[in-house]
Amino acid sequence: MKHNELLLIKLGGSVITDKKKPFTERRGVIGRLGREIMDSFKKFKGNIIIVHGQGSFAHIPASKYKTQKGIINKQSFRGLSEVADAAIEINRIVMDVFLKIGLKAISFAPASIIVSKNEKPYSVFIEPLKRSLELGFIPVLYGDIVFDIRKRGFCIYSGEKIIGALVKKLYKYYKKVRIIYCADSDGVYDEKGKTIPLINRKVIKKISGLVKASDSVDVTGGMLHKVKESLEVAGKYKITTYIINGLRRNNLFNIVTGNKLGVPISQIS
Amino acid sequence: MKHNELLLIKLGGSVITDKKKPFTERRGVIGRLGREIMDSFKKFKGNIIIVHGQGSFAHIPASKYKTQKGIINKQSFRGLSEVADAAIEINRIVMDVFLKIGLKAISFAPASIIVSKNEKPYSVFIEPLKRSLELGFIPVLYGDIVFDIRKRGFCIYSGEKIIGALVKKLYKYYKKVRIIYCADSDGVYDEKGKTIPLINRKVIKKISGLVKASDSVDVTGGMLHKVKESLEVAGKYKITTYIINGLRRNNLFNIVTGNKLGVPISQIS
Repeated sequence: MKHNELLLIKLGGSVITDKKKPFTERRGVIGRLGREIMDSFKKFKGNIIIVHGQGSFAHIPASKYKTQKGIINKQSFRGLSEVADAAIEINRIVMDVFLKIGLKAISFAPASIIVSKNEKPYSVFIEPLKRSLELGFIPVLYGDIVFDIRKRGFCIYSGEKIIGALVKKLYKYYKKVRIIYCADSDGVYDEKGKTIPLINRKVIKKISGLVKASDSVDVTGGMLHKVKESLEVAGKYKITTYIINGLRRNNLFNIVTGNKLGVPISQIS
Repeated sequence: MKHNELLLIKLGGSVITDKKKPFTERRGVIGRLGREIMDSFKKFKGNIIIVHGQGSFAHIPASKYKTQKGIINKQSFRGLSEVADAAIEINRIVMDVFLKIGLKAISFAPASIIVSKNEKPYSVFIEPLKRSLELGFIPVLYGDIVFDIRKRGFCIYSGEKIIGALVKKLYKYYKKVRIIYCADSDGVYDEKGKTIPLINRKVIKKISGLVKASDSVDVTGGMLHKVKESLEVAGKYKITTYIINGLRRNNLFNIVTGNKLGVPISQIS
């Protein structure tokens, strides 16, 4: 029997941290988003998984050691330890805030459950996470390092790639799966700075030059990366992604509870 | 082809924390043990895995919520989140110290990679951990909560049980596997307080009344639990466990590098 609905919520690194200041979280924003999830979870008949980005945490050592390239010199190993450590550090902060407000959250470590092969998900272990969903928990994951069985040794998995890996394993258990990205903009902008309401394979070629790269350090590629990962999930599993502004109060609550009115949104399907 | 040797080192919760003071780590001891591992690792031709206990961290909420009994009331869910959180907290401290001294350490989350069935390991995912060993890393794990596929929902896995679950998956890849427990005593004492040098199935009945329970809060059973888990591993996989005093300088270094002279030790096989 299939479960009702699975909702994967990505809390962008540019939302939960100040990307211009190394290792600087935004506890107020994390708390507000956590409360919006908690309030909407009460009205939502389904499971929720939260995946958060790294912002000014793991991107800093990842950029220094070029960790996304895998093993390139002797320092790469030290780099991996530091990136993995920074990745857990922001997760600790997010979990601390979530537990204080009473969210039924439990942390899962992407580096422990995903192995990639040339950066593609090769083996993904979701049994404990699935059991936690059955018990009504909200699993919390994060952009992380992932070991790769090829020569490069390891690579970086953005929150978007973590979501892709989870969807691949979980979508068959649900009648419906949706993805919501909380970004620091009102969705994806066109050249005039207006939100593009619908993005699909047909329009992506036209707009890929317009989608701006993130203006701070972001080793995983910013908005264009989000759109590409979303299109892949849309093509493979017919899953729609919504990109909303997570810095605006109640946007997330409204989308989860089905009230899209007044929320600028880019829908990717 | 089998690898040379795998050494699993358990750093006892009573060694790395002050069990009598809630949430109190011993950074000096953690650093000294980390350096002994680092120094011996240079002379050791094999892989090392470190598993540490919880001491005055996760045992506190675990005892409050009776988490080892699984779901017994509505508070059990909150308890699980708190125990899981405290378990990661002491791991963060251990990792912080290890990375500062330059240990090539990487953390793996037991709750993410183990599912139990009536408390026995049911499914254990070791691919990322195995890949990290191939790359020369020292994986660091810890006593943790584990989701259980039966009605109880979840249970607690001591460091000893984590080691048992890892050994089950890993022993076939190695020519030799050894386990070292760093405890806060000179091995297991007899009724006169003298270290019992050799423990096996024949002598266990005689001494099980003598093996003292831990004198602080320990939801996982203290020394008797260690001996029982060791005997199980000895019986199933012919693996010897050594219990040494981790509070005495150089005991760990001496054992890893094969110099047992002068180290009071209980060997369990």
